[in-house]
Amino acid sequence: MPIVTIQITREGSAPGRDTATEEEKAALIKGASELLLNVLNKPLESTFVVIEEVPLENWGWGGLPVPEFRRRKAGK
Amino acid sequence: MPIVTIQITREGSAPGRDTATEEEKAALIKGASELLLNVLNKPLESTFVVIEEVPLENWGWGGLPVPEFRRRKAGK
Amino acid sequence: MPIVTIQITREGSAPGRDTATEEEKAALIKGASELLLNVLNKPLESTFVVIEEVPLENWGWGGLPVPEFRRRKAGK
Amino acid sequence: MPIVTIQITREGSAPGRDTATEEEKAALIKGASELLLNVLNKPLESTFVVIEEVPLENWGWGGLPVPEFRRRKAGK
Amino acid sequence: MPIVTIQITREGSAPGRDTATEEEKAALIKGASELLLNVLNKPLESTFVVIEEVPLENWGWGGLPVPEFRRRKAGK
Amino acid sequence: MPIVTIQITREGSAPGRDTATEEEKAALIKGASELLLNVLNKPLESTFVVIEEVPLENWGWGGLPVPEFRRRKAGK
Repeated sequence: MPIVTIQITREGSAPGRDTATEEEKAALIKGASELLLNVLNKPLESTFVVIEEVPLENWGWGGLPVPEFRRRKAGK
Repeated sequence: MPIVTIQITREGSAPGRDTATEEEKAALIKGASELLLNVLNKPLESTFVVIEEVPLENWGWGGLPVPEFRRRKAGK
Repeated sequence: MPIVTIQITREGSAPGRDTATEEEKAALIKGASELLLNVLNKPLESTFVVIEEVPLENWGWGGLPVPEFRRRKAGK
Repeated sequence: MPIVTIQITREGSAPGRDTATEEEKAALIKGASELLLNVLNKPLESTFVVIEEVPLENWGWGGLPVPEFRRRKAGK
Repeated sequence: MPIVTIQITREGSAPGRDTATEEEKAALIKGASELLLNVLNKPLESTFVVIEEVPLENWGWGGLPVPEFRRRKAGK
Repeated sequence: MPIVTIQITREGSAPGRDTATEEEKAALIKGASELLLNVLNKPLESTFVVIEEVPLENWGWGGLPVPEFRRRKAGK
């Protein structure tokens, strides 16, 4: 009965995309479910996976919104 | 002071709808709050309910995104 | 596929208890699952319920830990 | 490594706005990260902050969706 | 900056154990972090994993606490 | 109606302690509640704070359980 919640920033992994693709989401769901099967022997059908996409400006790191945090890191 | 979080897939409960209706959400809020009142004697005013609607492609079951999981089940 | 998370303070609902009883937890699980069935037509077997018991000193309300918050309310 | 999750209703703090502003979100991120630094000595770079904005009709208080809850309180 | 939360029931995966082992937890952490690296190209150092172990009686499935749910399934 | 959830590792902030102290928890609750008051004008009485203490071996960073992650960082 595991529940795996994956929180990621809403952004693309390549130019021209602004969100994870359906294929990437399916790969996260498959991988997380198989991890629980392999490590704890949980059947695939007993695992739920929930992907939460968080707008970049709603995610903070280093005391800053992520866009600003990245700008400062890149500027170093 | 209970907090009840209800995570559901974002989809309609009848043809032509693509989300839970306001009436359905209100019924979930009322029912969850009354449950805490009846079972643990928590006053209605001390319970928060948060409904999180998750896009279908962000929810996984059986190692698959839910739309694909349902197609396979239906095809059996 | 709903997931219902119920967060409550870890305390008894009657003198001499310091936690919710197994019967109370079973009633919360039953009630929450039936709520999703009745409102959104979700089969009982597709709903997960997770009860999280939070120590009183880890829960804050009104800017204060709950034990202190209650003392002040009672003193008014 | 703390994670601070801040759930708020999606609404503006002044007329003409229907969501928290970028400045308000940045202030929440800064304040939460500094709180962990000041109280538990956690470096800013080790704290994640996630802001979740919940539609008003998805938030319940007093057994009612928040818009209805507020109407009744205001009417008293 | 992903956060992966893995909720599992607190029980052993073999006789004589009543919880996941340290090795199993390390494998979950490693696997979840590598999943985010492989699928979304997130560096290992930017992913947090949190494992939450939930007492069996606090987890509900099919409208029942898990121990009772399993007894009924086994009895079928 | 904000809810602030603060997840921290269960460990002491000084030698001889193995958890956050009651004073530290009260300071987190006070600080988080005042932050919502100052930034979004939310009354103290409408904010809930929940502190979740996570065992060190249940928290992963850099693909490793935190104790191992720290050992490697310190060894660099």
